[in-house]
Amino acid sequence: MADIESFVTELRQFVAEREWSQFHNAKNLSMLLASEVGELVAEYRWVPDVSADQHSRTEPARARIEDEIGDVAIALLLLCDRIGVDPLDAASRKLAKTRERYPVEKARGKAERPEE
Amino acid sequence: MADIESFVTELRQFVAEREWSQFHNAKNLSMLLASEVGELVAEYRWVPDVSADQHSRTEPARARIEDEIGDVAIALLLLCDRIGVDPLDAASRKLAKTRERYPVEKARGKAERPEE
Amino acid sequence: MADIESFVTELRQFVAEREWSQFHNAKNLSMLLASEVGELVAEYRWVPDVSADQHSRTEPARARIEDEIGDVAIALLLLCDRIGVDPLDAASRKLAKTRERYPVEKARGKAERPEE
Amino acid sequence: MADIESFVTELRQFVAEREWSQFHNAKNLSMLLASEVGELVAEYRWVPDVSADQHSRTEPARARIEDEIGDVAIALLLLCDRIGVDPLDAASRKLAKTRERYPVEKARGKAERPEE
Repeated sequence: MADIESFVTELRQFVAEREWSQFHNAKNLSMLLASEVGELVAEYRWVPDVSADQHSRTEPARARIEDEIGDVAIALLLLCDRIGVDPLDAASRKLAKTRERYPVEKARGKAERPEE
Repeated sequence: MADIESFVTELRQFVAEREWSQFHNAKNLSMLLASEVGELVAEYRWVPDVSADQHSRTEPARARIEDEIGDVAIALLLLCDRIGVDPLDAASRKLAKTRERYPVEKARGKAERPEE
Repeated sequence: MADIESFVTELRQFVAEREWSQFHNAKNLSMLLASEVGELVAEYRWVPDVSADQHSRTEPARARIEDEIGDVAIALLLLCDRIGVDPLDAASRKLAKTRERYPVEKARGKAERPEE
Repeated sequence: MADIESFVTELRQFVAEREWSQFHNAKNLSMLLASEVGELVAEYRWVPDVSADQHSRTEPARARIEDEIGDVAIALLLLCDRIGVDPLDAASRKLAKTRERYPVEKARGKAERPEE
């Protein structure tokens, strides 16, 4: 697995060469992320949930899913870099909150519910 | 910045303790990702694009945005771990394709267009 | 079933009273739509696909789903009204195109595929 | 403007001819909706908010946006029909709740905030 920081350096160069920084404010990048996630969801919309893992590992779907995940990761990293958020730190802090919100004893075996 | 692999190890333990693996097929996780990205987009929907970067760096929005980014990153890493995709490798391969699709000379200063 | 045009008239008054028209440009309304759809997806993310219809008809999920559908419909109608698109005309024209793209003989019993 | 009920009748026939009802459970249709909305958001992601209304009315973007709105409306109506929700009734009930949540005196001129 590569290193986030060196990949972000590559992303910055990619954007700078194309003079795309002018389009990459945080609002626009949140929309980029939403549209890329929409394409990832499209990949799974007609797949039964019990076959979804297998589908993800079988060509030609595999290659498309990797492409979509790549787009989502790029959009997320562009946004994080733009506004100075470390995605792993943010995830780590959020996981700590989620641990408290769903204590093991109460959450075991139960899907989170939107109303909780 | 922390290390993706060690964070994913934490995530696995978090899921295992709660016996949530049964809910975490790839289809469901793509939906988790879509709903978390929806919350991130909500943060920016009424913010003018010219103020979006500043908004992202100012409390109390800052804390909410970090939370939402944390949720998005967690959902993405859960999906990647479930189906055996390395997110940085996928991003790196996709960036290489995108470089070819948008050569510097043709793309400079122009926003990508959906029809391209 | 009520009439779209009279509901849109109500929506216009609702927005005008609150002086929210200034926030309701087409870009922002597309983001409102995305965030509301994210909430609807959240309702189904942990529900097995074989139980999703039943889940949709059973309280308390029923009331939440109706609320989310209401939000999605409102966002869509606000956008359509803002830019002068008749949603049923647009749907009807798109359905005609989709009929041609997926002729009965070739499409019968097969889910659309993203690559098609 | 056409009539929702007669359009839904057309939709049912379109689905029946293709034997697609088997794919159209509520979970899958919520994903269809999310992916179609992602395509609509893509149309606006690089457009400045101050130009978004004008962009929406100018070809060739106009035709693409109408297509995307058509897809979103179709997905929403398929879901509503599947689970027996009247979209305008749901919107009307939700608007009544939103009126109470954002009384004119308190909401005037202020964008809703996610934390409210």
